[in-house]
Amino acid sequence: MAITDYLFGRRLATYEEGEQRVGVWAGIPMLGLDALGSAAYGPEAALTLLIPLGPAGVGYIGPISTLIITLLLVVYFSYRQTIAAYPHGGGSYTVARENLGETAGLFAAAALMLDYVLVVAVGVSAGVGALVSALPSFQPYTLALCLLILAMITAVNLRGTRESGVAFLAPTYLFIASLLAVLAIGVVKAWLAGGRPAAVEVPPSPLPAESAAGLWILMRAFASGCTAMTGVEAVSNGVGAFREPAVPHARRTLTAIIAVLAVMLAGIAYLCRAYGIAATEPGRAGYQSIISQLVAAVVGRGAFYYVTIGSVLAVLALSANTGFADFPRLCRVVAQDGYLPAGFAHRGRRLVYSQGILVLAALSAGLLIVFDGITDNLIPLFAVGAFLAFTLSQAGMVAHWRRVGGGHAGRSAAINAAGASCTAVTLAVVLVSKFVEGAWVMVLLVPGLLLLFRGVRAHYQAVGREVATAEPLDAAGLEPPLVLLPIRGWSAVTRKAMRFALKISPEIYALHIAGDEQAMAALEDGWETLVRAPTRAEHLPAPKLIVVYSPYRRLYGPLKEVVSDLARAHPGRDIAVIVPEMVGTRWYHYVLHNQTAALIKAYLRLSGFRRVVVINVPWYLAG
Amino acid sequence: MAITDYLFGRRLATYEEGEQRVGVWAGIPMLGLDALGSAAYGPEAALTLLIPLGPAGVGYIGPISTLIITLLLVVYFSYRQTIAAYPHGGGSYTVARENLGETAGLFAAAALMLDYVLVVAVGVSAGVGALVSALPSFQPYTLALCLLILAMITAVNLRGTRESGVAFLAPTYLFIASLLAVLAIGVVKAWLAGGRPAAVEVPPSPLPAESAAGLWILMRAFASGCTAMTGVEAVSNGVGAFREPAVPHARRTLTAIIAVLAVMLAGIAYLCRAYGIAATEPGRAGYQSIISQLVAAVVGRGAFYYVTIGSVLAVLALSANTGFADFPRLCRVVAQDGYLPAGFAHRGRRLVYSQGILVLAALSAGLLIVFDGITDNLIPLFAVGAFLAFTLSQAGMVAHWRRVGGGHAGRSAAINAAGASCTAVTLAVVLVSKFVEGAWVMVLLVPGLLLLFRGVRAHYQAVGREVATAEPLDAAGLEPPLVLLPIRGWSAVTRKAMRFALKISPEIYALHIAGDEQAMAALEDGWETLVRAPTRAEHLPAPKLIVVYSPYRRLYGPLKEVVSDLARAHPGRDIAVIVPEMVGTRWYHYVLHNQTAALIKAYLRLSGFRRVVVINVPWYLAG
Repeated sequence: MAITDYLFGRRLATYEEGEQRVGVWAGIPMLGLDALGSAAYGPEAALTLLIPLGPAGVGYIGPISTLIITLLLVVYFSYRQTIAAYPHGGGSYTVARENLGETAGLFAAAALMLDYVLVVAVGVSAGVGALVSALPSFQPYTLALCLLILAMITAVNLRGTRESGVAFLAPTYLFIASLLAVLAIGVVKAWLAGGRPAAVEVPPSPLPAESAAGLWILMRAFASGCTAMTGVEAVSNGVGAFREPAVPHARRTLTAIIAVLAVMLAGIAYLCRAYGIAATEPGRAGYQSIISQLVAAVVGRGAFYYVTIGSVLAVLALSANTGFADFPRLCRVVAQDGYLPAGFAHRGRRLVYSQGILVLAALSAGLLIVFDGITDNLIPLFAVGAFLAFTLSQAGMVAHWRRVGGGHAGRSAAINAAGASCTAVTLAVVLVSKFVEGAWVMVLLVPGLLLLFRGVRAHYQAVGREVATAEPLDAAGLEPPLVLLPIRGWSAVTRKAMRFALKISPEIYALHIAGDEQAMAALEDGWETLVRAPTRAEHLPAPKLIVVYSPYRRLYGPLKEVVSDLARAHPGRDIAVIVPEMVGTRWYHYVLHNQTAALIKAYLRLSGFRRVVVINVPWYLAG
Repeated sequence: MAITDYLFGRRLATYEEGEQRVGVWAGIPMLGLDALGSAAYGPEAALTLLIPLGPAGVGYIGPISTLIITLLLVVYFSYRQTIAAYPHGGGSYTVARENLGETAGLFAAAALMLDYVLVVAVGVSAGVGALVSALPSFQPYTLALCLLILAMITAVNLRGTRESGVAFLAPTYLFIASLLAVLAIGVVKAWLAGGRPAAVEVPPSPLPAESAAGLWILMRAFASGCTAMTGVEAVSNGVGAFREPAVPHARRTLTAIIAVLAVMLAGIAYLCRAYGIAATEPGRAGYQSIISQLVAAVVGRGAFYYVTIGSVLAVLALSANTGFADFPRLCRVVAQDGYLPAGFAHRGRRLVYSQGILVLAALSAGLLIVFDGITDNLIPLFAVGAFLAFTLSQAGMVAHWRRVGGGHAGRSAAINAAGASCTAVTLAVVLVSKFVEGAWVMVLLVPGLLLLFRGVRAHYQAVGREVATAEPLDAAGLEPPLVLLPIRGWSAVTRKAMRFALKISPEIYALHIAGDEQAMAALEDGWETLVRAPTRAEHLPAPKLIVVYSPYRRLYGPLKEVVSDLARAHPGRDIAVIVPEMVGTRWYHYVLHNQTAALIKAYLRLSGFRRVVVINVPWYLAG
């Protein structure tokens, strides 16, 4: 792959560029993958907390799921409003910032950034959870498998793909179809068996009860189960991706996603009770995910089982992939407002995008390592980030309706207020019930990021004030710069650089730092023919050769001395240091060349020579 | 920390600069740490393979240790020769390359580089093994602890320390003193008890026998145990660090190190038999290192136990630290010969050194993760690298004596030939007996690195031929370059850059890519007063303003078009693009500024404009 392709070849997702717009059928996989994938870990997260209740614990999944589905519907109506109000896409950051002010917006941005990291970590770990459920002999390698899949996703994203709806379409619909089919078969079987169907593959028996049910444990199970709702905000962020009329298309897509998700959650809860499926200890030998137990119980471990589990793995890996698309996009918006380094603000180019990918991959890998590649350990952090973003976005919508007013404003504000209140209460429940288990991490990180954002902006503003001026150009007393050209010997590269030097100044010093007396003598002997004679022929002043002998190959010390001497001898004059630069076509050319050039430049800068200008004359390598 | 300190503040280890030279007492910790630390994992590596033999397995540690100590003595005499022949330091790479030719040298370099990565990984994991033996509740966090300690060592190395013998002195002598004391007490106790002493703290009973002893299992135990010899080559590499007369000082140091190591190995083997100490399953709950069992058996788990285990941890962590000192140094020597990127070849500066540290940390972290932070899993790779380097170095010495001839040459060659043969046989044993367990990784990696080295050199040679020329400078037909100055608005930075532009050319184009119509209008309105009037006053041609409207904040497309237009309109002329550069004093200034400048430059290069020269005019930030 040529480095040009690598650095600049690929733009961001095509729908952003408005070149390809989707309808409902393509919209469901593109924007619903994440939400639907949550069904694979949300119910399990709740059930894992019910393990200590023993066989009786499974009974509580019904009321907990009912509560979660109700909350999901409230959030659904709330996001329908957002879609209408922000037809170009209303992410939590945009909505909170426009309506609730800077601080709320930055809180939302911080929550979302952490969320994307968690989307990646949870998607990967839950996918691996599905994999080791199907192939239990891989269980001891959980973390290694997580890192392997993460590395693959990272490589795909770095390499670039022609990302299109099609890649998401097949696995998403396979997942929806197979899981709904399993649920339907299970419900029919349960109905025929009077609510107590016989499992084709009997699930592992629940562990014996260790404690009685209580409000505290049920609250924690609910808080964990709420991660089943993560990802439902994607449609409201991506309204701009829909064909016109975008708003009804987006709303219909959201309706379809929420309906399927609600049916899945209800079906999973019902069948867990009917078949007596309890969670197994995560991260231990014998771990088997809820979905795997459920599918095996309903249809046995045949081909259908493996197809379904395969589609779960694919959807979860792709949902991790959405983190890679969303994280750099959010960074761009935040950077455009001045809260992140300006480099992130440019649109559609790979170099910056690649930095985002690597940062995200490193953070996710860190999380996976710290939490041992086990989804259950990541759930508390995930729930906090998601519900903080939900709450801020919907509270922002309430303010939005108050601000714009109009006919439906009162009703719309009420709907969003209901959504905001419910998610705020849930957030409080999550924070309290999950604080010790990991929510405290978010309580530190979110404000930490907020401070970072503000610090970045304050710095840019300070620099802006520092360089602001209304003074016009000073064009008096101009003198050409002194040119200093460090050379290793005589070559075509030196020759080209020297010719450029002659174009900009009559005073040129070539500096040779010699580690080898022979090369030094050769250069001094050749100078007359190679340099002096040709310039004399054109009636130009000849470039001077300065040779410094440095037996230990020290480069920077002698260079610094020569620059200091020139600066002292010519006060007020600019010194232009010409550093030839090798330009290649392959990525490894950049590793193999120009390190010395970059170091020379860094060294000159850090030595604080204010009058030194660095000029890079390119030499294009042939290969 | 100011970025200048970070990038350029620290030189490499002082003894390299010849400013501080050591004698035997300081030399033992500085160059012997690594070899002595091997006693903490070598015997255990052998015993771990004897686990399947059950209680009888411990009996075989005697003959195996005897064989290892014999081999150690052979290697000792061999390295005494190297010290005499290479009084300025004879690393395996140097010795193999000078005497056996390029390929052997590169093989040695590849083996050594991998070895340094393994020194780090094994040092850290064995140190953590000691820690979790003393504090068994930390056992489940083995990998996390390894990564934490690795991160600490990396940070210390990145930050830079005033590395001196003193830092190594205390822990090394504490380790030697406490371990020898434990061994002495144990031997006396065993002697008083007629060979069957009662343990103060009874070691865990060996697992039941699963198989009978056989040549195969003993061979593998021997191969693993040979890692007790790693690190003994350090003295011969570092002869240059000794006070004059260097050779006798170095030889005495080597003698002391080998003597202590041999006594330790013999003592450990004897006491393991006497107390019936067998290895425990590595990486499982209940794991306890051999040293920990031994110390506890001899003196109990009192304060002395914790001091001894603490010194083991310190010595192993410091031995990991030596990898960080040696790896960049080897890279420099290899780069000076043209087999690694030229940037590595410069001496004594932090920027390159930091790259090496980060590369080494990443590779070691990768190894630790893949092998779960368990020393035993890393042993096969470690043994291959170490014995390949031993063999090549000593075979090189044989060739050396043949080449130089002289009085003792025959005897010296014979000693080195004995050493080379023994280590070659051991290498073969390790390769065969450890192939499946991990040695195959080295069999792939060493030749892989060799190909990389050759590829790098071939590339440099090709470029050298490409740019070689004897043609003199062409000073005819010089015209000043067209200057293009992208500007965001009028500021002190723009003003300075524009003034520089006027010094080098009469034809200046300022390019403003506007995302905002208001700013665009303001700039156009101000141009007359800010730029045109002052230049006219000096009778200079006025810089032209080009404004391109780009509502989506695209930067590169419009820039490329303007450069193309200029290039087409002025064939043959150079185009100098001036990119102002913010120079700061804090590391984060580099993250916050200049990303756009770097991207502009990269983009111009990659767009293949051969006549575009990039000029960086610095602006020094105040803060």
